[in-house]
Amino acid sequence: MTDNLQFDGQGRLRHLLTIEGLSRQTILDILNTAESFITVGEREIKKVPLLRGKTVVNLFFESSTRTRTTFEIAAKRLSADVININPGVSSATKGETLLDTIRNLEAMHTDLFVVRHSQSGAAYLVAGHVPAHVHIINAGDGAHAHPTQGLLDVFTIRRHKGDFDKLRVAIVGDILHSRVARSQIHALAALGVPEIRVIAPKTLLPTAVESLGVRPYTDMQEGLADVDVVMMLRLQRERMHGAYIPSEQEYFNLYGLTAAKLRYAKQDAIILHPGPMNRGLEIDSAVADGPQSVILPQVTYGIAVRMAIMALIMGGAPETEPAARRRAG
Amino acid sequence: MTDNLQFDGQGRLRHLLTIEGLSRQTILDILNTAESFITVGEREIKKVPLLRGKTVVNLFFESSTRTRTTFEIAAKRLSADVININPGVSSATKGETLLDTIRNLEAMHTDLFVVRHSQSGAAYLVAGHVPAHVHIINAGDGAHAHPTQGLLDVFTIRRHKGDFDKLRVAIVGDILHSRVARSQIHALAALGVPEIRVIAPKTLLPTAVESLGVRPYTDMQEGLADVDVVMMLRLQRERMHGAYIPSEQEYFNLYGLTAAKLRYAKQDAIILHPGPMNRGLEIDSAVADGPQSVILPQVTYGIAVRMAIMALIMGGAPETEPAARRRAG
Amino acid sequence: MTDNLQFDGQGRLRHLLTIEGLSRQTILDILNTAESFITVGEREIKKVPLLRGKTVVNLFFESSTRTRTTFEIAAKRLSADVININPGVSSATKGETLLDTIRNLEAMHTDLFVVRHSQSGAAYLVAGHVPAHVHIINAGDGAHAHPTQGLLDVFTIRRHKGDFDKLRVAIVGDILHSRVARSQIHALAALGVPEIRVIAPKTLLPTAVESLGVRPYTDMQEGLADVDVVMMLRLQRERMHGAYIPSEQEYFNLYGLTAAKLRYAKQDAIILHPGPMNRGLEIDSAVADGPQSVILPQVTYGIAVRMAIMALIMGGAPETEPAARRRAG
Repeated sequence: MTDNLQFDGQGRLRHLLTIEGLSRQTILDILNTAESFITVGEREIKKVPLLRGKTVVNLFFESSTRTRTTFEIAAKRLSADVININPGVSSATKGETLLDTIRNLEAMHTDLFVVRHSQSGAAYLVAGHVPAHVHIINAGDGAHAHPTQGLLDVFTIRRHKGDFDKLRVAIVGDILHSRVARSQIHALAALGVPEIRVIAPKTLLPTAVESLGVRPYTDMQEGLADVDVVMMLRLQRERMHGAYIPSEQEYFNLYGLTAAKLRYAKQDAIILHPGPMNRGLEIDSAVADGPQSVILPQVTYGIAVRMAIMALIMGGAPETEPAARRRAG
Repeated sequence: MTDNLQFDGQGRLRHLLTIEGLSRQTILDILNTAESFITVGEREIKKVPLLRGKTVVNLFFESSTRTRTTFEIAAKRLSADVININPGVSSATKGETLLDTIRNLEAMHTDLFVVRHSQSGAAYLVAGHVPAHVHIINAGDGAHAHPTQGLLDVFTIRRHKGDFDKLRVAIVGDILHSRVARSQIHALAALGVPEIRVIAPKTLLPTAVESLGVRPYTDMQEGLADVDVVMMLRLQRERMHGAYIPSEQEYFNLYGLTAAKLRYAKQDAIILHPGPMNRGLEIDSAVADGPQSVILPQVTYGIAVRMAIMALIMGGAPETEPAARRRAG
Repeated sequence: MTDNLQFDGQGRLRHLLTIEGLSRQTILDILNTAESFITVGEREIKKVPLLRGKTVVNLFFESSTRTRTTFEIAAKRLSADVININPGVSSATKGETLLDTIRNLEAMHTDLFVVRHSQSGAAYLVAGHVPAHVHIINAGDGAHAHPTQGLLDVFTIRRHKGDFDKLRVAIVGDILHSRVARSQIHALAALGVPEIRVIAPKTLLPTAVESLGVRPYTDMQEGLADVDVVMMLRLQRERMHGAYIPSEQEYFNLYGLTAAKLRYAKQDAIILHPGPMNRGLEIDSAVADGPQSVILPQVTYGIAVRMAIMALIMGGAPETEPAARRRAG
């Protein structure tokens, strides 16, 4: 997977496939553009005409109403027409290939595909075959990447913690299978976070995870010690039935984020979760709904970040104000 | 369930959860506003900009394409953006709670939830947890209420019968399990209908049904005698397999509305049905499609009534003309 | 099925149910109007306000995401509101009849139904029961007709071959069960194509197929000899398990379009396919993706043709320029 597939000849972002390989400045451009969209969601009329007359296709081979909804809302607030397609129940069953599906849709003069697929690399495959005027956003491909989630997470952190260069961040849960974790690590690293930790049972840590620039922990007390940000991952319940986890109860006891465990972190640490939460499994409700949680703000920011990405890759981003840019510097 | 959850501090309707507890004037305000929307459906361009830039979420935990379509059309004619979500096939399967689903959607700055759920009280539960700027319409919760149906029914009656204060109305069918019947009874009572009857086999009548202010009948001849309005209910076929009904044929013989039984009612009696109809079970086609049927006008008025409710609770209702108000008085 | 159901009292096209019975001039009017919409898809803002405030219902009893998407995009580019309904999973399961579903939707002041149904004649049945202001487009009814496909196919041929009156055209595949083939034959015949051939194994040719004005062939070499246009049909894999076809491999050997067989046709012959393709069954990838293939342009033109049909039957077609009309003459 060549990351430069994401950029056009002039070095402008054309697709968003992964955070790996994005420069600090590119990420900051996205965050700054998202800042300018935050107010759109707070207006009486939550709509700007940036993508009027454009056709955005939500192409969700792996179904996720929640993620699809965030992209649908983001696109409609930009005034685009949105087509929702769940090919799992359509052409795929007719034996059509992924690329034939894409070629057909792009022949209809669609402008942007938001692609979610259970196989790593699917969005890359698509991006490698579309003409110059078609743009791709990866909304999750297998265990590989979920870049919009990673970007809304760092947007959330910046909103609540300001600069990145003094932060200690812990990512907790199923690091091994998580595309979210991978995108978070790339984003945090690119933004210069000096200490990124991952906390998980050994069975859920990738081998040689240190090569990603993170410090692995298998103990919550040690891993959470003095962190500024706790990023919880969703635990797929289907992992429960393998050799990964002894039992839900034991997982919760050891790795579930509770008020007691949270005390190991800094007093003003914030808690993130990509949702949907398994309350009582990876996170206790007292913490999920407590004062340190920024889980719902993440959702709000997620719309602005997705609007920013859509606007930027389609070349229609509004001018970001110098003030916002300075603040981010 | 506290009914005043429906009103804000200034006594304005904020959610529509049930007709129970609505004043006669509030109901008339809704009907009068609906009158002003009737013409929108008849225009060349069936669109008004009242809810432009608002996001309406159809949240149908219990699926109903017909009802969802009426709300979708109503919202789009008000220029809102509409998101259709059927959580039965999404986050619910991921173990997310109803309230987490709602909190997530409201964090996306959505403005109105149209909620349908198989459990009584679901829309109340939601309304009790949303911030002030989010509005809820109950599109049917278990056997409890279906207020928009009740309101479009009384709108239909007013359009065809004028004033309510001399009417004799019979509701026929599965009163016991019907949220539609409950909402109809509350609406008719609030509007001062002097005689409300319910007709059903004993097994389908609630105990102490008289406490609702209605007269129970188990015989169609007696119950339909001299009524002005016959409101048929849809019979759920799954009731057939219990102890409720001996057989479909016997039910039709005793309670199915036929031309012969209709003769017991006044000659100019009108017939309503919420749809979808079981032709040959609770109603005969000759009656359903006959000159006294107002079943299709109900559907037409249903769009206007739903537009009115959406506009009113979101504070964007157009001025209703004094003339319409006078006529309704 | 009376074809004049398609026309109003003034002889204007009111529904599009079948190409059978359409005059050459009516078809040319559609193609010329489609020409004027081709540029809309190439604009920065791909939207015209012709159907603003109209409600288009995609009523797909037989599910087809691909075809539904083309109509949804076409309607949205005309600024209509679009409602997608798949009654297979809704009212149909509640026992409502097709006509009750239609009557309900039209009572909501919807303007256009795009109907797809597995039974031949379904769109006719609907068209026979709607009021004057409601329009129907047949998006495929059983083995009977798929007129928008037939029209986009002749649009494609005209774009690449110019006039019709010297063309030799071959339709290859399951002629017996194909509504696409039927619509193509009617369109080609009406436009004056002097030689229309069908090529298929005997088991997939209708008896007395010559009565349609076509020449049957069972051999590809003979059938493709010197043709200008090759129209491939999609082979339904379920036919494989009957007495129709010995095996997929043998079908491909005898009737699959390969580079070798294509050499029998004229050197500049074009290849059409309605999609989705079974690569390696009815068509080889080398041909499907080769220089003579116009399969993707078909998809592009399909949007313009569907926009044209919607605009024409709803009386809102833009003026077609005399130039376009002359060119088509």
